[in-house]
Amino acid sequence: MAPNSALHSNFNVDYVISYRFADTNNVEARNGFTALMQSLARVGLATEVRNGDNCSLLVFIKVGSDKRFAHEVYRSRVKDWLHGVRAAEPAKETQDTITGQDLTEAERFRIIHHLITSPTEEGGAGVTPKEGQWKNVESIFPLHDHIFNKEWIKKWSTMTFLKVEDLDEIRNRFGEKVAYYFAFTQNYFAFLVFPAAFGFASWVILGSFSPVYALVNGLWCVILVEYWKRQELDLSVRWGVKGVAGIQKKRRDFKHEKEIRDPVTGETLQIFPATKRLSRQLLQVPFAFLAILALGTLIATCFGIEIFLSEVYNGPGKSLLVFLPTGLLTVLVPTFTTMLTTVATRLNEYENWETAESYESALTQKIFVLNFITSYLPIILTAFVYVPFGSIVVPYLDIFNLTARPFAQNEKQLETPKSGAFVIDPSRLKKQVIYFTVTAQIVNFGLETILPLVKRRGFSKYQEMKSESAAKKGGAGAGVTIDDVPEEAEFLKRVRKEAELDFYDVATDLREMVVQFGYLSLFSVVWPLTPVSFIINNWVELRSDAVKICLEMQRPTPHRADSIGPWLDSLEFLAWLGSITSAALAYLFSNNGLGPDGTPATIKGWALLLTIFFSEHLYLLVRWGVRIAISKIDSPGMEKERGERFMVRKRYLQDTLGQDVLDVPSRLMEEKITRASLEEDARQSSLRTTGPTEHFWSRQKTWEESAKVGANLIEKMAPKEGKKQQ
Amino acid sequence: MAPNSALHSNFNVDYVISYRFADTNNVEARNGFTALMQSLARVGLATEVRNGDNCSLLVFIKVGSDKRFAHEVYRSRVKDWLHGVRAAEPAKETQDTITGQDLTEAERFRIIHHLITSPTEEGGAGVTPKEGQWKNVESIFPLHDHIFNKEWIKKWSTMTFLKVEDLDEIRNRFGEKVAYYFAFTQNYFAFLVFPAAFGFASWVILGSFSPVYALVNGLWCVILVEYWKRQELDLSVRWGVKGVAGIQKKRRDFKHEKEIRDPVTGETLQIFPATKRLSRQLLQVPFAFLAILALGTLIATCFGIEIFLSEVYNGPGKSLLVFLPTGLLTVLVPTFTTMLTTVATRLNEYENWETAESYESALTQKIFVLNFITSYLPIILTAFVYVPFGSIVVPYLDIFNLTARPFAQNEKQLETPKSGAFVIDPSRLKKQVIYFTVTAQIVNFGLETILPLVKRRGFSKYQEMKSESAAKKGGAGAGVTIDDVPEEAEFLKRVRKEAELDFYDVATDLREMVVQFGYLSLFSVVWPLTPVSFIINNWVELRSDAVKICLEMQRPTPHRADSIGPWLDSLEFLAWLGSITSAALAYLFSNNGLGPDGTPATIKGWALLLTIFFSEHLYLLVRWGVRIAISKIDSPGMEKERGERFMVRKRYLQDTLGQDVLDVPSRLMEEKITRASLEEDARQSSLRTTGPTEHFWSRQKTWEESAKVGANLIEKMAPKEGKKQQ
Repeated sequence: MAPNSALHSNFNVDYVISYRFADTNNVEARNGFTALMQSLARVGLATEVRNGDNCSLLVFIKVGSDKRFAHEVYRSRVKDWLHGVRAAEPAKETQDTITGQDLTEAERFRIIHHLITSPTEEGGAGVTPKEGQWKNVESIFPLHDHIFNKEWIKKWSTMTFLKVEDLDEIRNRFGEKVAYYFAFTQNYFAFLVFPAAFGFASWVILGSFSPVYALVNGLWCVILVEYWKRQELDLSVRWGVKGVAGIQKKRRDFKHEKEIRDPVTGETLQIFPATKRLSRQLLQVPFAFLAILALGTLIATCFGIEIFLSEVYNGPGKSLLVFLPTGLLTVLVPTFTTMLTTVATRLNEYENWETAESYESALTQKIFVLNFITSYLPIILTAFVYVPFGSIVVPYLDIFNLTARPFAQNEKQLETPKSGAFVIDPSRLKKQVIYFTVTAQIVNFGLETILPLVKRRGFSKYQEMKSESAAKKGGAGAGVTIDDVPEEAEFLKRVRKEAELDFYDVATDLREMVVQFGYLSLFSVVWPLTPVSFIINNWVELRSDAVKICLEMQRPTPHRADSIGPWLDSLEFLAWLGSITSAALAYLFSNNGLGPDGTPATIKGWALLLTIFFSEHLYLLVRWGVRIAISKIDSPGMEKERGERFMVRKRYLQDTLGQDVLDVPSRLMEEKITRASLEEDARQSSLRTTGPTEHFWSRQKTWEESAKVGANLIEKMAPKEGKKQQ
Repeated sequence: MAPNSALHSNFNVDYVISYRFADTNNVEARNGFTALMQSLARVGLATEVRNGDNCSLLVFIKVGSDKRFAHEVYRSRVKDWLHGVRAAEPAKETQDTITGQDLTEAERFRIIHHLITSPTEEGGAGVTPKEGQWKNVESIFPLHDHIFNKEWIKKWSTMTFLKVEDLDEIRNRFGEKVAYYFAFTQNYFAFLVFPAAFGFASWVILGSFSPVYALVNGLWCVILVEYWKRQELDLSVRWGVKGVAGIQKKRRDFKHEKEIRDPVTGETLQIFPATKRLSRQLLQVPFAFLAILALGTLIATCFGIEIFLSEVYNGPGKSLLVFLPTGLLTVLVPTFTTMLTTVATRLNEYENWETAESYESALTQKIFVLNFITSYLPIILTAFVYVPFGSIVVPYLDIFNLTARPFAQNEKQLETPKSGAFVIDPSRLKKQVIYFTVTAQIVNFGLETILPLVKRRGFSKYQEMKSESAAKKGGAGAGVTIDDVPEEAEFLKRVRKEAELDFYDVATDLREMVVQFGYLSLFSVVWPLTPVSFIINNWVELRSDAVKICLEMQRPTPHRADSIGPWLDSLEFLAWLGSITSAALAYLFSNNGLGPDGTPATIKGWALLLTIFFSEHLYLLVRWGVRIAISKIDSPGMEKERGERFMVRKRYLQDTLGQDVLDVPSRLMEEKITRASLEEDARQSSLRTTGPTEHFWSRQKTWEESAKVGANLIEKMAPKEGKKQQ
């Protein structure tokens, strides 16, 4: 019902292509457009053209030939089945598949998108936005279903915990990839209830750096990650996408080295040797070093300057100068990150991944390294360099005195204290953690919701100016919008707005969650209220992401996925590392970092290392136990899958061989009747020729004879006593 | 060819049942025997009875009804296919399956064994040796194929490295479970070439306790384990047993708690809740503590006594007394182990495993704990207690002086040195490692080959005495053997011998290999010649195990398996632990455990822990890398499997839908012709009703119109400049 009304209000439009020609000359634009129309028509898509904003055309696409589309759906499902993603082969009546209940909006959009973008050799239109022949094709996007969106946001804003049916709905609308993000965030949010309560209690009772909190938090991290793995699997079965990673499309930029014929299937395979890729992947090691060096040096330098200015320097201008390192960081970290991201992307392209999925996942891993450094290094520096070694390091900070030299009145103001004379600020760590877990989250939230708005306004302004300048030069420019037919005007206005919106990248949102989880697992022992802050943040986050998708972004094209991909590894890694940092922090700051006399406590190397050793191995032991426990508990999804696959085969068997193929008892009855004759047959056949073997088997003709012979032998051989006993 | 001649020389006998009635009264024995004959006949097996040695009968079994047997083979294969073990469904012509090339001897024996032992409800004869009704059935075993055995041993004794075809042959004869043992040992042996060479070189150049050796050895362990995992998978595909663990038969002793109907397949399932089993499994924790306490105390006590007697006591009788601890260990360790094994078995029964496989694997894990303690604790005590803390601990050893008191002439001989005055014997560790890796291996080899021989002789003597006593009491006893028909005499003599042989348990041999691997990974840094000793040992071991199976054991009933099971976890654990012990040993004994002044070196706790920390994390990092690298390199087995499953589906598709179901290009051609009409149809249908949607889609009737409208719009909107540029 909902999809129908949605389609109706969208004039049955499936996809919209925004064709922008401001930068192209006229003839080229027209030829390109004609080619686009032809390509789309060739794959059975019907089109309507209207003018867009600012030197652009809007091409409305819907399925022209239902038969052709049904065939596409069927092909896609057969392919799934061939690769083992679907348990049962799809129904043969192709027409049924699109009228049937089981075609979700997401599947429809995914298949149409595939039809538009896949190469002509594979039966698609081969339209690739912003590339080659199609450089004027700015974007291809489905239209928002405003009725659903409104209901969705309304529903979510009134409920605390989402049910799996709510996730199903997202999956049906936006595809599995987006649904996995919401599923993970929801799962994480639900799991946060416990550490939030426990964290609050331990903040009241135990205070910071409590080993008890560290232990409980570590245990919780393990269970969260392991449980999510299981849930992920369950969802992939529920959504019918298990193993879908295996049938992703080839990347356009993939360069094969040789072609071989698969010896079994006879298909031609394009091969790029895995060993060659592995050797190229080794470049990641120097890249990681480069990233650590570049970003690490930057962050450490700014950190040094900050300490120097805030805790050593005491001349004039201090209140202003302390903002210098923050300013430096704000400007330089994004610059460095962008540069390093470019390097990472190059590296990733050089690795020549075969599918878009594997490409993306490899890139994600590289970007995680950068994220890790920028997100956690400042706290790591404070906790593991500043606090324990502060009084040793600070005297060397005078190299930074040039930052304050112009303002200093005398040398004394710039003088670093002698080794030992400097007293560290023990609250610095906590302040920093609070900054990252509260302030930064709020700032981030603001950036996420407000920045796109500003960007959008700016962009639309820019486009307007561009087309105005075009208009000045003689084109009709934005003026043609007035041609809209009244009954379409409202609709076209909406579509033009959506055409200007940003593209939604779910990976960004996922990354945010994973980085947040990292703060919790690595540093929440410093400030046990961290999970409380996160649970509030995530309730809002889940809803604001929904709003973001509905209002601030183009409707995402549904993609399939059977996992949150490489982020899972990141989660595992962070949970593991957390067992080390939490233990180290709990030991280093056992009395807020102060010894009994108020000065920094003497840290015993062996005690620190022993704490870490025990904590880490406890973590690994618990993880092992939790994994076994979870693997032993059968999950509904796995059961369903097993059962389905079994049933498909069984049904097939009964179709081809009849109901009773596996029933032995009934056959047993038959056999009983003919046993004697069968045995006789066997004996007869062995008697046909004569030899020791035939003689051997012919001594006793039936089992009764064998039994008799045996009884006689027993009689003869058995101790007589036994007989007497009777 | 070989199987035929083998069957011929065995008179076509498939299985032999040894029925022993010395302890039963006469009538009972006869009734039991009749029931046995009837049960076997009921499942279509032909029987012949001859007298055995010492109050026993030999029942010779062969397939009576080929049709019935073919049906059994087919049922077994269909079951495999239903559970996803076979890619393709078995051929429908059941008769083909047994005349076809693909029925191996192992499969034949496995299915006949299943027929004999599986419960009557499932269509078997339900004969369970030594249990209940069948307590007189001593054993069920196939006959050795002496021609093959001879060839096998001859072939192996002349070659160094086995090929995968050699393993195939074992699999075809003795089943996958035995084949996996040989495959693992062969793989381990081949891998040993490198550390043997490297170990020898580093023994010459670097000496003991070299960090370089420790590193290389650790790396090698990782690669061995990870590579074996992959090989195991490949072999399981090659042998068609992947996933076979999922269709193992129910354990007879399994007690279900409730019965539920599977919602998908509709089958009735007997359920024992996994959570309940998990909670029962928690008892393993106190069990492990008990084992460590009991065996640990014993070993530590004997160790203490030994040190006291050999290094403290210097009175008379020392040369004899030093054997006291060894004697104690030799007597008490097996006693304790037997007791603990009993406890472990009880515990395992209490855990109520569903299948024989899972029962066995759980028991294996428990026994591994016991093995670990008895095998490695003595060396661990020397390395990590005696050497670093010797001078602290030894003064407390005077509690053991009562062992020598009767012999001591004066108190001085019993006096322990003051703390610090005692000098440890640094060569003790190396001596101990050499003992375990050379002497113990040789002793073990002797026990394995000679002990069964002695046992067998003893047992046959015992049986003889028993039947002689029976004969004295009036029975014919062993005398009846003279009744043999001359042409059968030779054959029956052989079978009687085989009936007395031991049952072959492959788990024992596997355990031996895993324990050996443990010495290599944990302690070989002490004595780098360890791998040289092992490579020699294993060459002999592989051959002597072949000889053992052929000559000293009954031919094993073939069982299926798709892995070496829980031993794999043990291997992983040992490799991991090795990264810790090797690093610790390399640090502790960096100068043979002596400081620059010749006394035990001062050990810095933090340095030791840091070494361990780095070594362990290096290990984990390398393991991660190796896993990724191996997973990326496609294996022939996996490729084959993927291809096969794909082809099965594709063939099915083509059978049902015709060749061209997935070919788009040809359909595309058709479509081209009718495109215009199709589009027209679509438009017409939407024109049938009128509304804004229908109007919207009726503005442009064909793609040419859309293109034209678009071109006009471009013309109007585009900057005029662009036009001029042309």
